[in-house]
Amino acid sequence: MKILEARDYVVNNLKYALNPKSIAVVGASRYPTKVGYKVVYELMKWGFKGTIYPVNPRADQILGLKCYHTLRDIKESVDLVFVAVPAHLVTQIVNDAIEIKAKVLVVATSAFKEIGREKLQNDIVNTCRKAKLPFIGPNLVGLGSPYHHFNCGFIPYLPVEGPIAMISQSGANLLAALGTSQADHFGMSFFVGLGNKADVDFAEFIEYAGQDPHTKCLAIYIEGLDSPEAFISSCKKVDKPIVVIKVGGSKIGVKAAFAHTASENPNGDEYYDKVIKDAGAIRAQTWQEFLDVSLALGYLPPLKDDKVVMITNGGGAGLLSCDHFERLGMPLHELKDISPMLAQRIRAYMPMFGSPLNPVDISGTATVIQYKGAFQQALRDPNVDGVLGAICPTAVTDVLGVAKAAIEVYESTKDLNKPFIMICQGGEECHEAIKLLREHNIPAYPTAEQAVNAMVALYKYGKSKK
Amino acid sequence: MKILEARDYVVNNLKYALNPKSIAVVGASRYPTKVGYKVVYELMKWGFKGTIYPVNPRADQILGLKCYHTLRDIKESVDLVFVAVPAHLVTQIVNDAIEIKAKVLVVATSAFKEIGREKLQNDIVNTCRKAKLPFIGPNLVGLGSPYHHFNCGFIPYLPVEGPIAMISQSGANLLAALGTSQADHFGMSFFVGLGNKADVDFAEFIEYAGQDPHTKCLAIYIEGLDSPEAFISSCKKVDKPIVVIKVGGSKIGVKAAFAHTASENPNGDEYYDKVIKDAGAIRAQTWQEFLDVSLALGYLPPLKDDKVVMITNGGGAGLLSCDHFERLGMPLHELKDISPMLAQRIRAYMPMFGSPLNPVDISGTATVIQYKGAFQQALRDPNVDGVLGAICPTAVTDVLGVAKAAIEVYESTKDLNKPFIMICQGGEECHEAIKLLREHNIPAYPTAEQAVNAMVALYKYGKSKK
Repeated sequence: MKILEARDYVVNNLKYALNPKSIAVVGASRYPTKVGYKVVYELMKWGFKGTIYPVNPRADQILGLKCYHTLRDIKESVDLVFVAVPAHLVTQIVNDAIEIKAKVLVVATSAFKEIGREKLQNDIVNTCRKAKLPFIGPNLVGLGSPYHHFNCGFIPYLPVEGPIAMISQSGANLLAALGTSQADHFGMSFFVGLGNKADVDFAEFIEYAGQDPHTKCLAIYIEGLDSPEAFISSCKKVDKPIVVIKVGGSKIGVKAAFAHTASENPNGDEYYDKVIKDAGAIRAQTWQEFLDVSLALGYLPPLKDDKVVMITNGGGAGLLSCDHFERLGMPLHELKDISPMLAQRIRAYMPMFGSPLNPVDISGTATVIQYKGAFQQALRDPNVDGVLGAICPTAVTDVLGVAKAAIEVYESTKDLNKPFIMICQGGEECHEAIKLLREHNIPAYPTAEQAVNAMVALYKYGKSKK
Repeated sequence: MKILEARDYVVNNLKYALNPKSIAVVGASRYPTKVGYKVVYELMKWGFKGTIYPVNPRADQILGLKCYHTLRDIKESVDLVFVAVPAHLVTQIVNDAIEIKAKVLVVATSAFKEIGREKLQNDIVNTCRKAKLPFIGPNLVGLGSPYHHFNCGFIPYLPVEGPIAMISQSGANLLAALGTSQADHFGMSFFVGLGNKADVDFAEFIEYAGQDPHTKCLAIYIEGLDSPEAFISSCKKVDKPIVVIKVGGSKIGVKAAFAHTASENPNGDEYYDKVIKDAGAIRAQTWQEFLDVSLALGYLPPLKDDKVVMITNGGGAGLLSCDHFERLGMPLHELKDISPMLAQRIRAYMPMFGSPLNPVDISGTATVIQYKGAFQQALRDPNVDGVLGAICPTAVTDVLGVAKAAIEVYESTKDLNKPFIMICQGGEECHEAIKLLREHNIPAYPTAEQAVNAMVALYKYGKSKK
């Protein structure tokens, strides 16, 4: 339901949603195949440090924990009430949560407004708003934070620690990002599924993320905005990059977004272009771009200007990159125009058939020492705003050696505050190199275009900050 | 150098390039860090069954093989001469190769036209053309085929067996595809780096691929076309899908393409749009799209029409997909419009809060049995032209179980000749599922948009065939 601006009591209580001392799981189950079992299991598995109160009228113990028949039977204070019971039972639970003075309510249960039960959903919102109990959901997958070892929901894995707050209406896409986090080292500060966002809205999580010390970039997946004014004003308050993917813009997507999260899209997709622009956020088109751009904005400072130097051992990666830079409206400049001195110096790190154009092609025979020298020269040159490196494994390329050299150079030049992005295109050893680089805060990608998308986002964000 | 059409003597001899009985490696080295060592090493490592003749004037044995001081010292017949010596030595080697009546010449050596030595390169081409010795290169990384255990060049890995012929001017990008092949099961019939394509041109490899029984799809990476007429006419002769990525279209890319493979691009990028269209090929924009689309066209029949049904356990994946379908000009139809019967039947495989719209959302609780039923109903419905399935791992999703069910259903409905594509978005278990599906000839992708790109390519190819 619409809000005009983020409400303070909600923003203030979201700390109990992402870092609670105690949590009641209503609908906890004894049966391992049930979602109500998984929630308790995952909380324990990932090392939640607070107290867990399973609630189930027909059980006395769940996973070794004392089980309570109702919320009211818990005599200690409860920060977070997590609800996974059928929709018709939720109203009673909400009343109980208010009675025991819970700090925040998370309702995972589906089958509300998205299947036509708008009144039921609105009644619960009104009850919660009157009691000033922030209500997250319904119809969501969960939430958590790797910094608090907190994994609360139907979620098989915690992400690795990192700078990105992932705020998603879709549970499945949130889960995909969490899976990616583990497999490809995509670091998150916290994550939340908003589902139908009946009460707590994007705006409130955006303001919370703005205050969260671990969050350096907000990544937001939207199916519909009930409160665009609040969204815009909260985004503007936050001095951190915000990346948005908005879906449901297609003809059938409008219907699918309603069926999924009861999201209403009375205005066309261009309307959202404007909202996102007014909010000062960056809009991504595809899921991959959404993740790639968020990663770079989370790890790196913005580009000061467009003088980017690319250093590659493969001309093909260079060509894919320079074409894509131009396609995105930020063409590369020739190295001799950026820095004649660098164009000369860089020759020392390549064979005679290399090319100092930009992309700088140090050739397929490039050694770790040549890479290191070229990276160092480029990053230290005062005329260079950022560096894009590419590793294309040939039979003589030491992929992990180059990755390590990149990390060394980056760490020794960190005070220069220049973006450094890597491409590692190829098989298993590239995947390892990408993870290693990301672990050391260098965004790295398996294809040229992904890296270019990321670099251009750093430029756009830098421009928007001016 | 320009050709007006593919030359028969070249096309006929390319079998010796990709399946030689004997190969001389000129520039073979005793020192493991040298590329001339790697070539012999990789040939042996990947199980080349023919005879290898290392050639090096200063060695008598390399990797346990008798070494010849010159090509002329080899008294047996040599199918393929592979050259990896400095550029100024190549002319002599070419004369020797002609003298010993080699069937095909592959010159890996760089530093020809791309650094200004056009005359040297042209002289060699003229010599080879006079002698009717097909000359592949110079300035290339190598070539090979997993079907013949043949890995010839500076190439750390053979791809897995499959339907795609990869013809690439760029060595580094070819290597990236080969790495991807191993890591993500991207199956290839053969691969070749063309480098400067001084003599043997795209057209000739295209015609060879047209005849090759293992090749079902051609994937071609182009930096410049010297012989567009030959390219068009050879593409038209081949009744197999052809996917092209053309780079070097940006302002700096024109220069970079010359510096890389001496490719000349006097005409703008729109010129190539026309050439590729005239050739009846599909143009990909990004490297990822190039691989994704090739995979689908290699494994699957074309779409007969645009009645695609999407079945997903995640509404978010459904929304990303239906938006992208519309973005690409092939919007999804509602299921009730495609098949009212199917819209009814599919209800049996989802909970009450699922959605039979299209995307069909069978919800996050979907079991293997529900997936299987939904896939089967959709594939068997006569009004459905193709099916897109999505697995979004929730805490209760049996990812590998669903993948196996998809394989079972696909194999039992193969006679219907309908495309079936899968999305598996998430972490490590999705990566495993993707590999498993690809091993069973189902194109599978980690993001929705990649799968939609692939499905739309099948539609475009189907339309172009009509």
